[in-house]
Amino acid sequence: MSRFVLGGAAAIAGIGATEFSKQSGRSELRLACEAITAALADAGLRPAEVDGLCTYSLDHNIESEVFRNIGGRELKFFSRVHYGGGAACATVLQAALAVQAGLAEVVVVYRAMNERSEYRFGSGLMPAAHVVTAELVQFGWYMPYGLMTPASWVAMLARRYMHESGATSADFGRVAVTMREHAARNPAAWFHGKPITLAEHQASRPICEPLRLLDCCQESDGAVALVVTSTERARGLRQPPAVIAAAAQGAASDQQQMTSYYRADIARLTEVELVARQLWAQSGLAPADMQTAVIYDHFTPLVLMQLEAYGFCDRGAAPQFVRDGQIGLGGRLPVNTHGGQLGEGYIHGLNGVAEGVRQIRGTSCNPVAAVEHVLVTAGTGVPTSALILGRGTRR
Amino acid sequence: MSRFVLGGAAAIAGIGATEFSKQSGRSELRLACEAITAALADAGLRPAEVDGLCTYSLDHNIESEVFRNIGGRELKFFSRVHYGGGAACATVLQAALAVQAGLAEVVVVYRAMNERSEYRFGSGLMPAAHVVTAELVQFGWYMPYGLMTPASWVAMLARRYMHESGATSADFGRVAVTMREHAARNPAAWFHGKPITLAEHQASRPICEPLRLLDCCQESDGAVALVVTSTERARGLRQPPAVIAAAAQGAASDQQQMTSYYRADIARLTEVELVARQLWAQSGLAPADMQTAVIYDHFTPLVLMQLEAYGFCDRGAAPQFVRDGQIGLGGRLPVNTHGGQLGEGYIHGLNGVAEGVRQIRGTSCNPVAAVEHVLVTAGTGVPTSALILGRGTRR
Repeated sequence: MSRFVLGGAAAIAGIGATEFSKQSGRSELRLACEAITAALADAGLRPAEVDGLCTYSLDHNIESEVFRNIGGRELKFFSRVHYGGGAACATVLQAALAVQAGLAEVVVVYRAMNERSEYRFGSGLMPAAHVVTAELVQFGWYMPYGLMTPASWVAMLARRYMHESGATSADFGRVAVTMREHAARNPAAWFHGKPITLAEHQASRPICEPLRLLDCCQESDGAVALVVTSTERARGLRQPPAVIAAAAQGAASDQQQMTSYYRADIARLTEVELVARQLWAQSGLAPADMQTAVIYDHFTPLVLMQLEAYGFCDRGAAPQFVRDGQIGLGGRLPVNTHGGQLGEGYIHGLNGVAEGVRQIRGTSCNPVAAVEHVLVTAGTGVPTSALILGRGTRR
Repeated sequence: MSRFVLGGAAAIAGIGATEFSKQSGRSELRLACEAITAALADAGLRPAEVDGLCTYSLDHNIESEVFRNIGGRELKFFSRVHYGGGAACATVLQAALAVQAGLAEVVVVYRAMNERSEYRFGSGLMPAAHVVTAELVQFGWYMPYGLMTPASWVAMLARRYMHESGATSADFGRVAVTMREHAARNPAAWFHGKPITLAEHQASRPICEPLRLLDCCQESDGAVALVVTSTERARGLRQPPAVIAAAAQGAASDQQQMTSYYRADIARLTEVELVARQLWAQSGLAPADMQTAVIYDHFTPLVLMQLEAYGFCDRGAAPQFVRDGQIGLGGRLPVNTHGGQLGEGYIHGLNGVAEGVRQIRGTSCNPVAAVEHVLVTAGTGVPTSALILGRGTRR
């Protein structure tokens, strides 16, 4: 494949969010509109200039209602990506494609949910099926055996990863402690001012062994929006652009949603490896070129497995990488400087993309020095996606 | 906006379908896989070469299950478009964007549904809501007043269109008669060999006035798949490529799904006008350059309104255009030579895209002479999309 033609043509020019809470007290539509309005104000753009909208298939706010409510006029591009948090970076990819093709000039990416106060992904309950779907049939093979929740699906992979790499529960705990340390310094984080110790992690109750409560991300209410436009236009707007240097999606052989148990090696994230190969090939960059990363942290073991899949460490070496403090502030690769979904809030990864933008701008509450490029990843275990954001070069 | 950069870079290289029926007797997943397998065979490509999948948000077959079941290996692009039949052409736009950007080389578009035997959009029933969505709130303003079905939503527009244009029920009937005449000659059509007369249309029972039974498209079981790849690669494959000369999406001011009743003029399809403007601007083509068209025919009045919105006739002139026989074989613009969704089957418009491809190839059962370009449209009343397919020029 030739060099990715997106490289550098589109950028994130604005970010916006509501507060991250456990009970927003208002509708998901209102959350979406608040975040979008904030992102447009951040960029210095008017709602009438928006001509594209991208979101997750799981978002309950249809594009036309969002568009009417923000005061949009003509919408020329709209698309969705499936697989929950796996879509986090793919929505930005979609926006960049539209901008590059000239289909739209100002594309807003949004995710709004009352995932804590209205419904909970971790409840193990699914709405009653009114029709037999391929999706329900897939889960139908596992649910009768008690594999009802994301934590239970991931526990299978985590146990195998421990067996192969020698990772311990304490290694998972070090990830959680680091995220909470970052969140403690982030005023927007739900766990602002509330760091945890490794002992607290080890004492937290089991959810599905080997996962403890503090290995699992939060469930949150809130919304995040991003404004994507051409890098050229972004340079004339209010904020320094975060240039989309590369973007990719991936699903691999024998892929299922969270339950790819028929693979030769279930402790390997082959879909993430596929995304990583594409990112490095598109951009000509390598892991060594990333000064910081936003690694999707729905469950702590998957942070370790992603560090390996993206090539920041060899296979099985992520536990030692974390023990050495390399994902903390001052380490080789500070990870989730906003506190991640364990610490800031769980908005299906879109809040992580916003943190990537802040690191490029130099406005993170935990700024990393001399950031040129940030890797941002999306939900794993499902078909996934990732981005490289950069400062770009003024042309 | 500059000329659309997609123009001509991607093409439809393969088409496939199941039979169109009222009871397929098998799962939607199997229907999807059958149609995809047929489309790949038509193109002369292997399942392992597929690296992209695009579908409708309403399709029940998730990409990963489809991909595993056709024997896919590495999936690098997947996306969905909302709004039911409004997505018909936007899914092809998505595939073309991915191919052009080099994100994927062989992108399959699919739509599979047991919309007749398992569930019916025309039933007026919605599954019980487990969460309040913006979508349900929108419909919540109308349903208490009896506006429960697509036919009822469209009836409001149709009545106003009659008032403004002077169209009669017989004009709607002429659309139905023409579609059924085309279907009668199409062995793949449900109504193969079953033409109707205008008198039969006029005698058919009212569904929601002014709409009669024969103004409403079928409800069908079946699947359609399309293979999109680069025009360059397509030229080396089994079939003459149908080049994607232009593609666009649109939602306009005060847009709702089927119920945009707060607009200044509800007899005008402003979202279709937005799509039309983009298509002509992208391609440099005009209505006069189209030798035939596939016009989304969920309800006959919307065929008339689309003919006006795309500029084939002046506003209010479509009834006379149809009375003059211009949408029939031998007319100025033969429409839906496969018989449309009124005659062939209702697969959310994707069967119409396949007919556009056949007209470019010269393999339609109702071939139009010297076809250079075909307009294909998608569901209207909702945010919509359209395509121009062409023969392209060998480079």
